[in-house]
Formats: sequence, structure tokens, C-alpha cells
Amino acid sequence: MRCLYHMPLSPASRKVRLVLGEKRLAYELRVENAWESGDSFLAINPSGETPALVDEEGVVVCDDVAICEYLDERYPDPPLLGSTPAERAEARRLVAWFDRLFFGEVTQNLAGEKIFKRLAGTGAPDSARVRLGITSIRRHLDYIDYLVDRRNWLAGDSLSMADIAAAAQLSTIDYAGDVPWEPHPGAHDWYARIKSRPSFRPLLQDRLAGLPPAKHYADLDF
Amino acid sequence: MRCLYHMPLSPASRKVRLVLGEKRLAYELRVENAWESGDSFLAINPSGETPALVDEEGVVVCDDVAICEYLDERYPDPPLLGSTPAERAEARRLVAWFDRLFFGEVTQNLAGEKIFKRLAGTGAPDSARVRLGITSIRRHLDYIDYLVDRRNWLAGDSLSMADIAAAAQLSTIDYAGDVPWEPHPGAHDWYARIKSRPSFRPLLQDRLAGLPPAKHYADLDF
Repeated sequence: MRCLYHMPLSPASRKVRLVLGEKRLAYELRVENAWESGDSFLAINPSGETPALVDEEGVVVCDDVAICEYLDERYPDPPLLGSTPAERAEARRLVAWFDRLFFGEVTQNLAGEKIFKRLAGTGAPDSARVRLGITSIRRHLDYIDYLVDRRNWLAGDSLSMADIAAAAQLSTIDYAGDVPWEPHPGAHDWYARIKSRPSFRPLLQDRLAGLPPAKHYADLDF
Repeated sequence: MRCLYHMPLSPASRKVRLVLGEKRLAYELRVENAWESGDSFLAINPSGETPALVDEEGVVVCDDVAICEYLDERYPDPPLLGSTPAERAEARRLVAWFDRLFFGEVTQNLAGEKIFKRLAGTGAPDSARVRLGITSIRRHLDYIDYLVDRRNWLAGDSLSMADIAAAAQLSTIDYAGDVPWEPHPGAHDWYARIKSRPSFRPLLQDRLAGLPPAKHYADLDF
């Protein structure tokens, strides 16, 4: 059975779960928390990072971007990157935007301080970083508003890895109720569309012990 | 004419220059330094980051990973990711290793402190970070030793994006003479092979005003 090693609220892991869901691929999940990872996991991924996928026939694929590209090549239905090199470049540009910029400016400052520090037992949130995250998320929601004002999905006509990467980050922030949806109706409507897809359901069922989600987290009509 | 906006010593830009070189694609270079980037560049890349490629027919591609994937799809000769999904996954895993882990643990601590801070005029190197970079690079050179002991190139039989990503990072560190080649003969021999390729020549001609490279930087017999 295909197996994904993951951290439940990590956006990189969630991105891969969404891709597996969109492609209707069955898999089992194993939790591998970064702060307690052992030697047996290092034999699967020498970097010690999640997500890591062990596919059918035992193919091991590590790194979230490499896993998503692998899944799109190995299981091309539905395609999640577009058809021409230029379309695919636009989807990948936006994937990198959310994986790297949004993650660094928003997710690390909000979820990193408020959730992951607590799970790892590495201290209280740094309030200056939390404030920075609260400021930074607005620019990214503005950008989503801008994109969906011009396109059906973030990278073009069809749902792509770009939507999945963005939604994976936002779903982690939304768990703690830190996404200011109200001043961003375009981003809100786009997120409502992706949140209601069957691929999203498993993410909405995640619960961390001692850290319940915001009230609207699993609500499709938020 | 194809145009690449770049920062001369940035590994992300160097990676794209090496890919363009391996594929024998002509291009002109424009310097776009992160700390002085203006609105005209933001119209090309809304994130303000280099590298950004304007290809023939005006196709704009931003983000180093997206550019490398685009170039490999659009100009597949020679292929730089391998042929099967599993081979390509291994090349991409190693690309991410060097782009993200090596960059974060080594390049930001060494070149970031010693070179980029100076160019941007943002202060003196933080000696604790420089020491951390000096310690961290050993683990990565050990890993290259390990890989080339088992394979011809880092990801398999042929030169791939993995070698290019690793060499791009190392070439930036080597500019300041901070790579301890001597205790790492495997990594040294692998780097000597890639450094002597025609695609590498333009990188070895880079010179920063007031910041000359280490004596052996452009020497193929280092």
C-alpha cells in the first residue's frame, strides 16, 4: 500500500495529500514529527524531512515539490500543471510563491510560532513574529484577490498545483483562525471552492491534541 | 533575444545560467540586485526576485525551479532530469536538497554574511553564523562524497539538474575560498569535472567590484 509520511498541519505534507486526493490515489498516512524523527525515517529520507512518499513497487520519493511532480508524471489524470510549457511555468511560479514566500512570511510567523513551537515544546510564541505574520498575510490575500479577478483558478482556467499549494498554506493558518477572510471576498470565494472539494475533506478532519481548530475551520460555509 | 535577469553570485541565478549553457541556448544577462530592484522589474516578476527569464516570443518565466523545468520541457536536448519518473524524482530531491538545505545552512551563513551583506551595505558579517556555515558545509560535502562513491553523477549515470544545483551553490561559496576541498576528494573530483564544462566558463569570469575571488576560483586545476 502506498504510504505518505507526514506532519498533519505541515503545508508541505498537506499539499501532497491534496494532490493524492485530486488524483484519487489511495494511501495510508504515517505521522513523522520533525522534532522526534528517528533513524528508521532517515533511511527513507536522509534529510529527515516530511513529506516522504513510498509509492507502489517501493519507489521512494522525498521532498514535497519532487513528490508532486512525480505524482503528476506517474498518474497524469487529472493533470495539475497545465499543458504547455508556459502554462506549466506559471503554475510552478505560483507554487514557489506559496511554498517559499507565503511560507516564510506568513506560515512560519503564525503557525510556526503559535502551533509548531507548542507541539515541539520549544517555547512561547514570539509576539513580534506573530504581528509580522498578521501584516504579511494581507499582501498575499490581495494577490489571490488580484489573480482570481482575472482567472478562474490561480494559474489559469483549471485547478492546478498553484491552487493546491496556496490552499495548503492557508488551511494551516485557518486552523488557528488567523486568515482575515472578510476584507478579501475574491480569496474567500476561491478558498470556499477548493475547500468543498472531496480532496480537502481529510485535511478538515485533522485535530491536534490540546489544540482544537477555530470554530469555522471545517465549515464549508465560513 | 532571450534575456535573463540575475544577480551574479546568486546560486539560483547561476543554476539557470548553467542550464542555459548545457542546452547551448544564447541569452543576454541583465543584473538586477535584490536590494535596489525597481518597479520595472516588478512588472516582470511581481515577487521582485531573480532569476527571471524572458524567453523568445516574450514568454516570461519566474522562479529558478520553474525556469529550469521550463527550459527542460521547451528545450529537451540534452535532458537534465532523467527519463523515468523515479529517476526524475531523485534528481528533483537532490535539487531541493541543495536549493533549500545547503542554501539555508551554508550559503546564507557564508556568502550571505560575507558577500551579500557587503554588497547590500547591511552591516558586518555575524561571526556566529559564519562559524555555523563552516561547520555545516562538511556534512554536505560528506554527502556528495557518499553519492559520487556510488554513482557517476549525483543523481545517477548522467549529469543532471542535481549536479547543477549543487555546483551553483558551491561555486558561490568557492568564490570566497570557503570550500574545504582537501578532506573531500570525491566532492573535489566531481566539482573539477563539472567546473571544466563549457557551461561553467561564464560563472568563472564573474568578478565583483572590490571583492576579488579566491586565488583558485577560476583555476580548473585547483
